Amino acid sequence: KWSIETVSSSLFKDLAANILAYLNTKGISTDEIIGYGIGIPGYVKDGIALNCVNLRWKNVNVKEEFTKAIGYDCNVAIYNDAKLAAYGEYVKSDKAYSSIVFITLGTGIGGGIITNGVIQDGASGLCGEIGHILVDDEIGFKCSCGRRGCFETVASATGIKRLANYYNSIYNINYMYTSAKHVMESAKDGREGAVLAIEKAAKYIARVFSTLSLTIDPNAFIIGGGVSDAGDFLLDKIKRYYETESFVEARNTDIIISKLKNDAGIYGASAFIIKKFKEVS
Amino acid sequence: KWSIETVSSSLFKDLAANILAYLNTKGISTDEIIGYGIGIPGYVKDGIALNCVNLRWKNVNVKEEFTKAIGYDCNVAIYNDAKLAAYGEYVKSDKAYSSIVFITLGTGIGGGIITNGVIQDGASGLCGEIGHILVDDEIGFKCSCGRRGCFETVASATGIKRLANYYNSIYNINYMYTSAKHVMESAKDGREGAVLAIEKAAKYIARVFSTLSLTIDPNAFIIGGGVSDAGDFLLDKIKRYYETESFVEARNTDIIISKLKNDAGIYGASAFIIKKFKEVS
Repeated sequence: KWSIETVSSSLFKDLAANILAYLNTKGISTDEIIGYGIGIPGYVKDGIALNCVNLRWKNVNVKEEFTKAIGYDCNVAIYNDAKLAAYGEYVKSDKAYSSIVFITLGTGIGGGIITNGVIQDGASGLCGEIGHILVDDEIGFKCSCGRRGCFETVASATGIKRLANYYNSIYNINYMYTSAKHVMESAKDGREGAVLAIEKAAKYIARVFSTLSLTIDPNAFIIGGGVSDAGDFLLDKIKRYYETESFVEARNTDIIISKLKNDAGIYGASAFIIKKFKEVS
Repeated sequence: KWSIETVSSSLFKDLAANILAYLNTKGISTDEIIGYGIGIPGYVKDGIALNCVNLRWKNVNVKEEFTKAIGYDCNVAIYNDAKLAAYGEYVKSDKAYSSIVFITLGTGIGGGIITNGVIQDGASGLCGEIGHILVDDEIGFKCSCGRRGCFETVASATGIKRLANYYNSIYNINYMYTSAKHVMESAKDGREGAVLAIEKAAKYIARVFSTLSLTIDPNAFIIGGGVSDAGDFLLDKIKRYYETESFVEARNTDIIISKLKNDAGIYGASAFIIKKFKEVS
């Protein structure tokens, strides 16, 4: 496992050169590779990156571009990054779930939906973009998407920090939170703004899970991303709200914390490639 | 097409006898039947009616019971009624959609989700139970499920009538609406309580569609049930709200009115049986 810095303009060339150099140092020939995976922070459908704001991509055929750069054609797993992570959590889960929803609470909120073992893209690659479900009519923070009250404005790491500082300003508490981790630690100490923020975020997470239980109806919700480092402190609150927010028939759905953390995408991509390879062989 | 009155205690026996008698009058032998479909108002998974409040069923193996009653084994399409209707709308749609969400706005709200041609059940048969998505924190009418603010408390036929009478009471308008149709006609005449109710219902329908676009991401939303008889009057309002409620990437999703009406389930069941029959043959 290693990482490199990239620039958008020469991304494929840089990645390919770096990977080929690495294989060379290990004495591995490209003939030994059965496939590769690419997780993309944007909307992807059938291997095409439809829209990827951070990389300024519109309708980029990722497989074609990368194949050209690396000079080698094989099986690929080209998906939205959260979807590949979801697949990793699915294949590595302790229980044999048939369907899961993976949610990543980081700077923003991403998601991936696996139904009967299949990564769901949807008609426009939006399947799993749960960060933009409208949940908050009460405060209505502005979202990067232009609307107000999206799920990620109140339950991402950024959202939790924003919520805590909002409550501090409402209650004239002269204190600034600098991160979601900071809010989480302060909530454990009973600081009012932080407590209110975590309760609110947990309630909205439970509500979105309730909505997902009536639309996707998975066996489990798996929570990843930086916010999930809070572990049981957050999980217990989410489960408590899920008891009242959810439809009675949906209450036996598991809610667990990701165990693969940042490696979920690597596991997902390799499991996907191995499955494809076995199907062909 | 015909219908019979049934009582829960002898449902299978009565249905089977009635159907066999009909076949007899037409001179059709059971050998000529390639299958049958049963649409059930409740949660169904793998042909088992997990829970069906109106019929007081819990974990009833519908195929087994009906096969026993009719004395003939063949292909079956045993699903929740809204799911079979969804499949009918899917196979009979004018455009070749790969995925649709069907929503039936009647006494309650039901739904069916078809993804890449497959009827989705979910882990507990809840996939498509969108009537119980929590949407309304503002008024919070009590729902039959025990919670407050479910989608069907404000956008079903019952919900629209309730909303209009609620607004009349708020604004001291001494007038009672007796049905959703009555509300719809009055809204066209500009009566205040009715106008407010229809605007609110349309906004919530648009919001649920927005949520579904980020979780299912279908090509189209198809609206059925008694409320859909309002046609373009309601559809135009839903589309207007969808423009602001939805994520920008999801705005090209079609929103249309059901064309099969009450026959959607019949079309769905027969298409499903024919598909199964062809797969086997």
